[in-house]
Amino acid sequence: MTNPASKVLSALKGRTLATAESCTGGGIGAALTAVPGASSVYKGGVISYCNEIKHTLLGVDMQLLDTVGAVSAPVAEAMAQGARRALGTDLAVSSTGLLGPGGDDFGNAVGTVFLGIAWKTGSLAREYRFSGNREQIRQQAVEAALKLLSEHI
Amino acid sequence: MTNPASKVLSALKGRTLATAESCTGGGIGAALTAVPGASSVYKGGVISYCNEIKHTLLGVDMQLLDTVGAVSAPVAEAMAQGARRALGTDLAVSSTGLLGPGGDDFGNAVGTVFLGIAWKTGSLAREYRFSGNREQIRQQAVEAALKLLSEHI
Repeated sequence: MTNPASKVLSALKGRTLATAESCTGGGIGAALTAVPGASSVYKGGVISYCNEIKHTLLGVDMQLLDTVGAVSAPVAEAMAQGARRALGTDLAVSSTGLLGPGGDDFGNAVGTVFLGIAWKTGSLAREYRFSGNREQIRQQAVEAALKLLSEHI
Repeated sequence: MTNPASKVLSALKGRTLATAESCTGGGIGAALTAVPGASSVYKGGVISYCNEIKHTLLGVDMQLLDTVGAVSAPVAEAMAQGARRALGTDLAVSSTGLLGPGGDDFGNAVGTVFLGIAWKTGSLAREYRFSGNREQIRQQAVEAALKLLSEHI
């Protein structure tokens, strides 16, 4: 069985990829760079573990963050678009969600994760509900991000 | 036994931290954000998996990258300084090294890793030689980064 990160990197050959991670905290980047030769596709990313960094480094609108909250489809899309722009890559993938133990001010349940993808002419976001502890939710989010990328390459 | 990431986050209470990761590819961020409540200290970081991103997002001098190479003490320090500046944190930690299988153009052996720390009034870098496979070298680099931070907080 091929490693999901290897599969994504092989499929992306000749194109470049960036990450914008909130709830996965670097886990998508770590999964991609575990593959030898990842650097020909994966250029890097931004770990935006607070709203301010989502705004300053990824260009996510502060009003959007204040009104719909960081854990939302529009923010996931804006993060992916921002990473693609900031790193100058062909594609970008993003994550934002609630790992727990606490919820957020927008009524999202622990385990709610939005993943986004941006490419030259568009972007999309998808909502997920994962269960388990903090680490299990994160691991599922990383795997889902690689799968989402595979489906949209 | 306390988790090394928890120890760093507890010791940093009231201050903020950023990461600038090359060879660890997001692993330091992932270790820190595995701890519940990490967001009060850890604000995020940049994964700079190529020289261009080290320059554009972290402000590392291109001439420095060309002359001494990315896997070097001056670049590790400059990456940490750049992350501290870009994310507006009190402290930053950085990693740059060779996980293999291939070496680089500057004669560094696989397993060579430089870790850096930057704070308001200074910065430092330390050289390490790790052995093992790609994942083992990375894991040792992540642990050493947390240890280096603990020693300099």
